[in-house]
Amino acid sequence: MTLPLSDEVLDRVFRRARTVNSYTDRPVSPQVLREIYDLLKWGPTSTNQCPLRIVWCVSEPAKARLAALCAGGNAEKVLRAPVSAVLAMDLAFYRHIPRLFPHVPDAQSWYSGQDEMIKESALRNSSLQGAYFIIAARLLGLDCNPMSGFDEGKINDTFFADTPTRVNFITTLGYGDPATLYPGAPRFDFEEVNTLL
Amino acid sequence: MTLPLSDEVLDRVFRRARTVNSYTDRPVSPQVLREIYDLLKWGPTSTNQCPLRIVWCVSEPAKARLAALCAGGNAEKVLRAPVSAVLAMDLAFYRHIPRLFPHVPDAQSWYSGQDEMIKESALRNSSLQGAYFIIAARLLGLDCNPMSGFDEGKINDTFFADTPTRVNFITTLGYGDPATLYPGAPRFDFEEVNTLL
Repeated sequence: MTLPLSDEVLDRVFRRARTVNSYTDRPVSPQVLREIYDLLKWGPTSTNQCPLRIVWCVSEPAKARLAALCAGGNAEKVLRAPVSAVLAMDLAFYRHIPRLFPHVPDAQSWYSGQDEMIKESALRNSSLQGAYFIIAARLLGLDCNPMSGFDEGKINDTFFADTPTRVNFITTLGYGDPATLYPGAPRFDFEEVNTLL
Repeated sequence: MTLPLSDEVLDRVFRRARTVNSYTDRPVSPQVLREIYDLLKWGPTSTNQCPLRIVWCVSEPAKARLAALCAGGNAEKVLRAPVSAVLAMDLAFYRHIPRLFPHVPDAQSWYSGQDEMIKESALRNSSLQGAYFIIAARLLGLDCNPMSGFDEGKINDTFFADTPTRVNFITTLGYGDPATLYPGAPRFDFEEVNTLL
C-alpha cells in the first residue's frame, strides 16, 4: 500500500513553498537546469504531446534581451535572478506524436486541420508542463517567480522568429532569499470551490 | 542551504509515477479529496487568481452522468474509477482578486474588458492548478488518469449551467493498479527542447 509522503515533503512542494521576490548569490549550475528538465519531462500531457520548449537565459546578455521585453518591475527581477527562463509551446507539436505516442498510431490525425483546438491544447499542456517545472525546481531545492507581464509579440519575434513556437509564460529561477518574502496571500476554502456529487 | 529531496520522492512524484489505466478496490475517502485540495491550493497562479473549480463525482449516479458525456473508452474509465473529477475554470475569477491579491489593490483592473486575455489566463492558470492536482494526488499516494476526450458543451450544460464556469479537463482518481500499466512512452532528450543562452 502506497503511503503519503512525509510532512517535510508536502511542506517543501506546496504548503511552505512560496513564489520568491529575490534570490541568494548561490549560482545555479547548468547541470541543475538539466535535472529540472529530467524531472518535469515525466509529467503527463495529452497524447504525450510534450509541447513545452524552454529557453534558459543564463548569460548577462541573454537576461538583458529578455528584461528589455518585460513590463514594469519584472525587468529588474529578470536581470537580478541567477537564471530566467522562457517557457514556450510548440504549436506544431503534433509532428512528433507518432514518435511520442507510438501505441496509438492514428493519434496524430486527431489534430489534423484543428487549428483552434491545437492552440488551446498547446496552451493547456504547456501550462501543465510549466507547473511541473515549478514543482521540479522545488523538489531540487530551488525557487521560481513565474510572470505573465511581458510583450508577447516581441518575445516571440526575439526568441522564436520563423518557428511555430510561442511564449506561454516566463519565470526567474534560483535559490530564494526567505528574508524578502511578502506575507502569504489567502486561498479559497474547500467549500467555496469544490462540489461533491 | 536547501538540499534536493530524496530519490524516493523524485521517483514518486515524477520519475516512476505513471498515468494509470485502472485502480485497485481501495476506496478514496472524502477526507482525501479535501487533502488533495489543501495541497494544490498553495501552488502559484497569476495574480493569485485561483480559477480552478472542482466537481468530484463520487456517487454512482454522478459518475454515470459524467461517463455519458465522455468519448470512447473514457466512459468506461470514469465508471470504473473510485472517483472522477471535472477540473473547470471560473471565467469570472477576477471578481475575487481584491480578496485573493490584497497587496495590489488595482490588480482587478488589469482584467477589465479583456475578454480574450481573461479566457487565455483562466485556461493557463487552471491548467497549472490541474497539474498541482495531479502532483498533490501523487504526494498522497494516489494516481490519476487525466483525459480530454469528452463533449465539452454538454459537460458545461450539465455541471455548470447558468454560471461562468467552463470545463478544462477531467480525470479519474484512485489507487492505481500497477499490473495494468502500459510500457512508458518516450520523452524528448534535453537538447531537443531546451536552449541555453
